[in-house]
Amino acid sequence: MIEIDNDLKTRFLSVREQSLKLCAPLKPEDYVVQPVVDVSPPKWHLAHTTWFFEQFVLVPHCQGYAIYDEDYAFMFNSYYESVGKRVLRADRGNMTRPSTADIKSYRHYVDEHMAEFLSKNEIGADLAKVLELGLQHEQQHQELLVTDIKYILGHNPLFPVYDKIPYDQPDKAFEAKPNVVDVEEGIYEVGYDGNDFHFDNEEGLHKVFLHAYQIQDRLVTNKEFLEFMRDGGYEQFSFWLSEGWEWAKGLETKAPMYWHNLDGVWHRFTMNGLREVNPQDPVTHLSYFEADAFARWKGMRLPTEFEWEVAAKSALYVNKEAGNFVENEMYDTVYGDPSSNQMFGDAWEWTASAYLPYPNFKTVEGAIGEYNGKFMINQMVLRGGSCATPRNHIRSTYRNFWHPHLRWQFNGFRLAQNI
Amino acid sequence: MIEIDNDLKTRFLSVREQSLKLCAPLKPEDYVVQPVVDVSPPKWHLAHTTWFFEQFVLVPHCQGYAIYDEDYAFMFNSYYESVGKRVLRADRGNMTRPSTADIKSYRHYVDEHMAEFLSKNEIGADLAKVLELGLQHEQQHQELLVTDIKYILGHNPLFPVYDKIPYDQPDKAFEAKPNVVDVEEGIYEVGYDGNDFHFDNEEGLHKVFLHAYQIQDRLVTNKEFLEFMRDGGYEQFSFWLSEGWEWAKGLETKAPMYWHNLDGVWHRFTMNGLREVNPQDPVTHLSYFEADAFARWKGMRLPTEFEWEVAAKSALYVNKEAGNFVENEMYDTVYGDPSSNQMFGDAWEWTASAYLPYPNFKTVEGAIGEYNGKFMINQMVLRGGSCATPRNHIRSTYRNFWHPHLRWQFNGFRLAQNI
Amino acid sequence: MIEIDNDLKTRFLSVREQSLKLCAPLKPEDYVVQPVVDVSPPKWHLAHTTWFFEQFVLVPHCQGYAIYDEDYAFMFNSYYESVGKRVLRADRGNMTRPSTADIKSYRHYVDEHMAEFLSKNEIGADLAKVLELGLQHEQQHQELLVTDIKYILGHNPLFPVYDKIPYDQPDKAFEAKPNVVDVEEGIYEVGYDGNDFHFDNEEGLHKVFLHAYQIQDRLVTNKEFLEFMRDGGYEQFSFWLSEGWEWAKGLETKAPMYWHNLDGVWHRFTMNGLREVNPQDPVTHLSYFEADAFARWKGMRLPTEFEWEVAAKSALYVNKEAGNFVENEMYDTVYGDPSSNQMFGDAWEWTASAYLPYPNFKTVEGAIGEYNGKFMINQMVLRGGSCATPRNHIRSTYRNFWHPHLRWQFNGFRLAQNI
Amino acid sequence: MIEIDNDLKTRFLSVREQSLKLCAPLKPEDYVVQPVVDVSPPKWHLAHTTWFFEQFVLVPHCQGYAIYDEDYAFMFNSYYESVGKRVLRADRGNMTRPSTADIKSYRHYVDEHMAEFLSKNEIGADLAKVLELGLQHEQQHQELLVTDIKYILGHNPLFPVYDKIPYDQPDKAFEAKPNVVDVEEGIYEVGYDGNDFHFDNEEGLHKVFLHAYQIQDRLVTNKEFLEFMRDGGYEQFSFWLSEGWEWAKGLETKAPMYWHNLDGVWHRFTMNGLREVNPQDPVTHLSYFEADAFARWKGMRLPTEFEWEVAAKSALYVNKEAGNFVENEMYDTVYGDPSSNQMFGDAWEWTASAYLPYPNFKTVEGAIGEYNGKFMINQMVLRGGSCATPRNHIRSTYRNFWHPHLRWQFNGFRLAQNI
Repeated sequence: MIEIDNDLKTRFLSVREQSLKLCAPLKPEDYVVQPVVDVSPPKWHLAHTTWFFEQFVLVPHCQGYAIYDEDYAFMFNSYYESVGKRVLRADRGNMTRPSTADIKSYRHYVDEHMAEFLSKNEIGADLAKVLELGLQHEQQHQELLVTDIKYILGHNPLFPVYDKIPYDQPDKAFEAKPNVVDVEEGIYEVGYDGNDFHFDNEEGLHKVFLHAYQIQDRLVTNKEFLEFMRDGGYEQFSFWLSEGWEWAKGLETKAPMYWHNLDGVWHRFTMNGLREVNPQDPVTHLSYFEADAFARWKGMRLPTEFEWEVAAKSALYVNKEAGNFVENEMYDTVYGDPSSNQMFGDAWEWTASAYLPYPNFKTVEGAIGEYNGKFMINQMVLRGGSCATPRNHIRSTYRNFWHPHLRWQFNGFRLAQNI
Repeated sequence: MIEIDNDLKTRFLSVREQSLKLCAPLKPEDYVVQPVVDVSPPKWHLAHTTWFFEQFVLVPHCQGYAIYDEDYAFMFNSYYESVGKRVLRADRGNMTRPSTADIKSYRHYVDEHMAEFLSKNEIGADLAKVLELGLQHEQQHQELLVTDIKYILGHNPLFPVYDKIPYDQPDKAFEAKPNVVDVEEGIYEVGYDGNDFHFDNEEGLHKVFLHAYQIQDRLVTNKEFLEFMRDGGYEQFSFWLSEGWEWAKGLETKAPMYWHNLDGVWHRFTMNGLREVNPQDPVTHLSYFEADAFARWKGMRLPTEFEWEVAAKSALYVNKEAGNFVENEMYDTVYGDPSSNQMFGDAWEWTASAYLPYPNFKTVEGAIGEYNGKFMINQMVLRGGSCATPRNHIRSTYRNFWHPHLRWQFNGFRLAQNI
Repeated sequence: MIEIDNDLKTRFLSVREQSLKLCAPLKPEDYVVQPVVDVSPPKWHLAHTTWFFEQFVLVPHCQGYAIYDEDYAFMFNSYYESVGKRVLRADRGNMTRPSTADIKSYRHYVDEHMAEFLSKNEIGADLAKVLELGLQHEQQHQELLVTDIKYILGHNPLFPVYDKIPYDQPDKAFEAKPNVVDVEEGIYEVGYDGNDFHFDNEEGLHKVFLHAYQIQDRLVTNKEFLEFMRDGGYEQFSFWLSEGWEWAKGLETKAPMYWHNLDGVWHRFTMNGLREVNPQDPVTHLSYFEADAFARWKGMRLPTEFEWEVAAKSALYVNKEAGNFVENEMYDTVYGDPSSNQMFGDAWEWTASAYLPYPNFKTVEGAIGEYNGKFMINQMVLRGGSCATPRNHIRSTYRNFWHPHLRWQFNGFRLAQNI
Repeated sequence: MIEIDNDLKTRFLSVREQSLKLCAPLKPEDYVVQPVVDVSPPKWHLAHTTWFFEQFVLVPHCQGYAIYDEDYAFMFNSYYESVGKRVLRADRGNMTRPSTADIKSYRHYVDEHMAEFLSKNEIGADLAKVLELGLQHEQQHQELLVTDIKYILGHNPLFPVYDKIPYDQPDKAFEAKPNVVDVEEGIYEVGYDGNDFHFDNEEGLHKVFLHAYQIQDRLVTNKEFLEFMRDGGYEQFSFWLSEGWEWAKGLETKAPMYWHNLDGVWHRFTMNGLREVNPQDPVTHLSYFEADAFARWKGMRLPTEFEWEVAAKSALYVNKEAGNFVENEMYDTVYGDPSSNQMFGDAWEWTASAYLPYPNFKTVEGAIGEYNGKFMINQMVLRGGSCATPRNHIRSTYRNFWHPHLRWQFNGFRLAQNI
């Protein structure tokens, strides 16, 4: 059985508030656009997460609830094919109405009804699950809000600053040479096995056999990636997957996303503006293709998601609470001690595993069942969590996933090899 | 020599003010998007027209003028290949910064400097020409502002109202049967020949030989176009140009743009919301292909631009001041007596003429020379002017032009035939 | 009434034979492909022209005629929307069946029936018109056969030779400086007015008013065009139409089609293989955009189609029979004296006129009515005729037309200017 | 060490001969085209396989060998980025030269030199490996020849017959209800571990842990798939992966590839022409998306490639020699007893496994190293082999792979489930 916070209403309002906080530095125009198909308009995120609670909590469970606006169900339903006709994903960025103000009213209306509903009703286990899913869903969109905003601002020729306080990867001081951890051959258990919230895709402890391997204790750094670049890594076919090579040929700048070479010095766009690339930071905003090519250049490989999880649950695992991420507080207040944990929070880490169902994966019935399973093709698993990831989404079993060419998330990688 | 208003500063400020008035009903989000490549974001129009005055008046002529922001020149230069690197046209709608507020500050800054400059300096003939071109240019963008806003709102599933007061084609009561005017065979003179402002593309009175023809005294109506639709006009190849047929096959709704069939009744989206199609109004928002197909179905043809101009200068021409259009006043106050003029202001009228240079066409030297000549391919000429056209852009020699498939302008047509 | 050859059957068989002769140098593979949408497979040309006679002559007029294969009507109907479902134009090059051998059998079958039909029947005026149209239609496809074959071979990295005997533009020895002819202002008559065959689009003598102009007596040469190239003509926006500029940016080689710079020396691919560019030849395989840009660079312009026709009918016109073109003989035997005629046969010449209907243009009823009228949009008129043009398609009133970006035809241009 | 046939030369010539035999029923035109990017022209296959032997055997090892034509290396290098510039894959179908006759001469030349070389030289182990790889490579292209020819003929409106003798899936008489085999939980060994030829991607016996599962003893049948279709399987989102749903929306016919509904009766195109769908045959020409959707509809799943291999090596495995496939004989002579083996030869079977490297995967140095590894992204593994698969490519460890949307191969699937 899932246990959730005693004070459900407080938690609900706190998560909801965080989405608005993340948008606070935006100008009205920033809420609207969808520069590429994968990036959604911030106002769409605000509306879509609200729609989830209206659709799956208030409408079926709150007697007498009046839908805020029938048109919104049509417009803010994202990937739920089972529920009505959707606005085509690529057209989200042309929908100037409802305005952000209207969407904030919508949020307010739904939040008020939710608060009242949570105050006055006993919440059964099933509904509690849906509610928790709604909150986790909203937190996933909070991470997307950060990365989508970064994309919108980072592709503007003015390079606007989101906020002057640090709100991007924190400065690290990684050692020049990573340490490694050895893991013995054997049967290991992976997958989520507890009573806290978790997603359908990580459900179910199950056994995997791992051959002996070695895994690094930190992510690959900017310094190391610059060596790859300077060694002609982007120009040598033998390091690349065939689709990766085609992809890389189309890059205007042969470097990670957001990197700009200004008078011979590499800079990167951050939420706090353009700054010089710090060699000791983990390299991020990479595609799987780049991570994989780097590993081949180095004569190593990426760990599988199972190797990663086993390492995270054992030797490297120090303190689940550590890492650098966003939650209810503003980012700068939560910078903890990054050295206390070597698997979490620096960046999402590409693994060598395709995103596929676990042996016990079951699709939940109904629209909510669409949640994760329908994406199980052509994507690779990432593990760990980044500076934009809400704290309670950082755990050893969490399976993030993206198509191999995408890099607007804070994606990095670490290396492994056979022993 | 061009004569312009005695009080140049007053005129300047009045034209500039009108652009802002047209945007007054917008929500902040409406300023940002570019749903298709031909439609520009309203805030881009506000900035681009401002840039014209900064670039071509203040920078070269106003001593000590400090450019507002160097980046703006890069971002708001539209079609002027000669002046720096442009932001790709299709990407305009993803540029959330500068914000509308910043662009309004930019306008204010440039307007203040212009006002001061116009107060304190004698304006020579050459500069007066550039200045007038800037004002006419801004008025052209005012028409685009109206049609681009209509597109943005009209393609939103909420069908938002721009303004409750009439701000679209006025209601007409066209007779069921049009009258016709006969024009005799002979040599006629066409082209602009006067001292008022005119564009480079209409310059130069020159002779054309016209065979005898007959031209209708009003535009084709919704009622007539509905007959074409009901007769299967969109489904019969023989009425269509080959490219028109391919184009029409791709239409989701076989009807003019903005038309929606609600429970069997045709409605159209207007700036004032959805309303039932009035049979006695001129049909508008048509492509050249549709106008041409209708004419063939009717056994007639479109007039050439010369036939149109000759008719406008003679029999049908009553009162240059009449027509329905936008100027400094809000639209509803300028509804005049539409019957007083039968060639102007109901809609831009597709003609059977390709947009090509007149015999005396000369490209002005320098960046301003790019103005009209570079578009002289693959476009058809429209004459007359619409409800969105500023009053002083409505004249018998004005040559508007668009690609034959475009219909987001207030485009209609009238019929002609040989005698 | 149209007069045609006394011996209709002989003429029929001779025209039909010529199509096969043009294909004689091909290898079986060359008959099949469609490398770009505008280029059709040679075997498709052979079948489509045959289908015309079957569909419009044998089926309606030859009692007891049995269609060769019902499927062929479906597959070889080209642009006749009125007659059944077509094979999508872009898919022609993937249809390996019917084979060339089958198509030749089809030709043989239709030719035998046609020969018998022509021997045994009195051919009335109406049918004679259709028949003549079929022959002219086949001759048009003969020109396309030549240019499509050139495209197929010329885009193969092996640069295969079509034939060793000259079968491309003949060598010319144009003077370094062209002579000019002056034409006075006045009303002129243009259009076809005779009893020989002509197309619907040139029908009808009618009056045009021309201002005084000057026109060159020869085409622009390779030498002149190389000067434009060396002067940075492809890199300077001010010479170009806006759409032309976009088009030119996409060119891999900034030069006419088929030009290759080998170790600093410009060569061009010809039907007889790669050869060095001869400075005194007319420049060909140009788009309208390139012709227009050259003219602006030179401070001149292209003639309109009317200016061209008036010149061809008067001062420059010497001998209709001259020129260099293909007919029933192989090309090398028909090289006449190119200097005897200065308007015909060197290349199709881009004019400054859009392809639009003449005042008396009438669409013929039925499928044949689709012939020319449906293409009257977005194309420019070319006049004159090239080395690939059958002799009887070269006349002063013939209106050829292509989209402005196309250059796989033998297209060149001459210059004009106002006086 | 790899052992290969004693008489290497005989084997070489026999494999080479088989490629030509497969093309024997083609007409010259069929050799040329590339109707979609994945389908290569038959003549390209003939040349490319030849190039392999020239490039990797004759050039480096046969003293005094004169390359047949330098241009061919450029044109027939397929995926080997390491060796020179390639002809763009999508352009293969426009290269009419070299002709098929020239390519056959090329084959003859290379074969003669190879035969002489093999007769006169001791072949060391390393070269023997390369040679064997060349033969296996050619056999892979023999399977592609069959499926590419099927595509070329099957997308022609004439539905041409390749051969009248059976040359497609043989008729089966699958039981209405499949039997199942249970496999216990445990550690199993997978991967190739022997001395015969095998590909780099199957190299290395290694351990996997499998949970207990059940797997069917035959493929899903046409009858079963028709039930899915009739139950609205293509129209219900909940059965589909999100990308599969988008893909299926684009299908013109909601059925496997090559299926046509003629007057209410489902037919399928075969190498022997159109024939009625036999309910007891395995369903083939499916995408992964369709297989996966069917499995969800059935409440089951696809087996992983490891589950498949373990089953193939144990309970279901009867006779490696059985199955139906193409080799040196024509297909009809090799129809054996399909019931003797239940894992091989009916069709390639989609598995639930992404195509990724095995733990011991090593890329060979140099151009040959590109062989399989560079495709390890965005593809799914298929196991088993089809009627078009050469006999010696059918083994329990063979890993075939395709993108999930592709279905022009003989792809089917069987079902599995947890116990």
